[in-house]
Amino acid sequence: MIRVSIDAMGGDLGAQPIIEGTAQALEAVRFEPILVGRKAEILDILAPKYHNAVRIVEAEDMIAMHDAATDALKRKESSIFKAVDLVAKKEADAVVSAGHSGATMSLATLKIGRLKKVHRPAIATLMPTKIIDKHTLVLDVGANVDSEPKHLFQSAVMGQAYAKKLLKLDNPRVGLLANGEEDSKGDKLVKDTFAMLSAIRKDGFNFLGNAEGSDVFKGGFDVIVCDGFVGNILLKTSEGVAEAIFSVLKNSAAKSPAALLGAYLLKGAFKTLKRQMDYAEYGGAPLIGINGCAIVSHGKSNAKAIKNAILQAIRFVESSVNSEISVYLERYQSVEKGI
Amino acid sequence: MIRVSIDAMGGDLGAQPIIEGTAQALEAVRFEPILVGRKAEILDILAPKYHNAVRIVEAEDMIAMHDAATDALKRKESSIFKAVDLVAKKEADAVVSAGHSGATMSLATLKIGRLKKVHRPAIATLMPTKIIDKHTLVLDVGANVDSEPKHLFQSAVMGQAYAKKLLKLDNPRVGLLANGEEDSKGDKLVKDTFAMLSAIRKDGFNFLGNAEGSDVFKGGFDVIVCDGFVGNILLKTSEGVAEAIFSVLKNSAAKSPAALLGAYLLKGAFKTLKRQMDYAEYGGAPLIGINGCAIVSHGKSNAKAIKNAILQAIRFVESSVNSEISVYLERYQSVEKGI
Repeated sequence: MIRVSIDAMGGDLGAQPIIEGTAQALEAVRFEPILVGRKAEILDILAPKYHNAVRIVEAEDMIAMHDAATDALKRKESSIFKAVDLVAKKEADAVVSAGHSGATMSLATLKIGRLKKVHRPAIATLMPTKIIDKHTLVLDVGANVDSEPKHLFQSAVMGQAYAKKLLKLDNPRVGLLANGEEDSKGDKLVKDTFAMLSAIRKDGFNFLGNAEGSDVFKGGFDVIVCDGFVGNILLKTSEGVAEAIFSVLKNSAAKSPAALLGAYLLKGAFKTLKRQMDYAEYGGAPLIGINGCAIVSHGKSNAKAIKNAILQAIRFVESSVNSEISVYLERYQSVEKGI
Repeated sequence: MIRVSIDAMGGDLGAQPIIEGTAQALEAVRFEPILVGRKAEILDILAPKYHNAVRIVEAEDMIAMHDAATDALKRKESSIFKAVDLVAKKEADAVVSAGHSGATMSLATLKIGRLKKVHRPAIATLMPTKIIDKHTLVLDVGANVDSEPKHLFQSAVMGQAYAKKLLKLDNPRVGLLANGEEDSKGDKLVKDTFAMLSAIRKDGFNFLGNAEGSDVFKGGFDVIVCDGFVGNILLKTSEGVAEAIFSVLKNSAAKSPAALLGAYLLKGAFKTLKRQMDYAEYGGAPLIGINGCAIVSHGKSNAKAIKNAILQAIRFVESSVNSEISVYLERYQSVEKGI
């Protein structure tokens, strides 16, 4: 049975949604949850009927969102340290945390370790598109800044493997985020990565070329690759734009009863939109490239988001995505070395 | 009288909106328009009552959107080449073009030349925020990739001067685009630029620190600075998100008569939103740092956008923004040189 270690404490909303999400996951599939945190608090929240279905690992300390990620490595009694450590010690197959994402990434990379041939694990996220239920996998969205071409190249290979195995796409269309779709576009990093990705097209790697920021939301690419600094800008920009649009609409509509009625009549459409944009629907962001599975959930995850992150972790472990990554990175060594 | 050279041919929608926009600008203020393009076509579109108010400079050739920006330097009979050349030869004070933006930027930089001490001109654009009629000036959004800290530093100084003189802000709040708002965030470029901008705070430069992608749309910063590659991603991402949101809403609403009625009742709110997001309302993107004035308009500019770009060019020339930039870049030489 797959064992999923769950940081019960680190989220913005406390232990409640995390424990509730774990219970919901137990209703959906068979797995062994290991809840890491203050035992008394966990047992207090968890409905008695699940008490025998979970393992609880006591952890007194908790990394707060404002703590430095580097501190996390020293605070060995924290819930996230212990949750990751269970995977490192092979007592769990995967870890899910809605806590400090920097701490989760650092700990997972250092303690669980990288897959063979991986230079740097990357964090991937599914972005919504204008096509209902179609998403674009974007990586890296924050694990690494100051990337080199070999890092972006590996992100493309890892993202393609994830899209194949987890998103069940036959021949994922991979794009390289650039300041224009023409082959000549890009900064030095992108141009050098472009050459590397072009070299593996003959191997059947479905590299479509450069993708613009707007392409993330159109659905024409399955995987879009970028440096973690740029990925963070993309992520935060999209959140900012959506928030601004809804804010202007809401404030304008509030000024007229007719407009309020209009908003009411449109609520089905807004609901469809909300569902399409809601990260809770598809879980968390996998850290790809580690020798195991770590899912980084949004700090504000509700129970549904945690449940979906746990299901995602289980699918990740069941899939052969990590061995797929190893096979391809091994095969493409010559490209990385410029041979 | 201020002389504005206008590329009549290069836009996506042909000469019509450009010539119409020029006529609208003539109704609003006194200036001397110099329309550059095929004379017969221009006279055919321009209402006879304006024939004496404009100068027409014949240009047979036209740079198409798919042409390479480098070709533009050789095609001396093109409308954009001749329009920029008028400024270079001091026959015009400013140039406005809705044509090939790369060509406009290259030509303006090379032929008009840079202001003293400017390493690289930057292209700036006003992004909408959730606060009605409040925008954020973002630069660079595409003139330069592979920036060095001194380029971002100068963009901050130039953007601040533009915000003071053109946006009439007393003490513009300047931010540096980063992957988090904490001082420690950023890639190497951003961290090094952060140190430079921090050094001029004591001079009264209102550097607020790092800004996230979402901050562009919140209104808490007046100027946000980034490398041109990142700026392009930000711009295209925001376009993509807005388009996806409207597309999902429209498709969902189309499925139900009640929702369609809802959309109709909300049309005032959508109009407010559209106005807030419409680049036509505030003209074009100034290329800041050249020894003159060049406004790069959107390829799909309508007459109103062209009119506003012309008015913006006139205000630019009337303002002392270029001398303000020179004064400050001179003053900050020691920071640039790390003294």
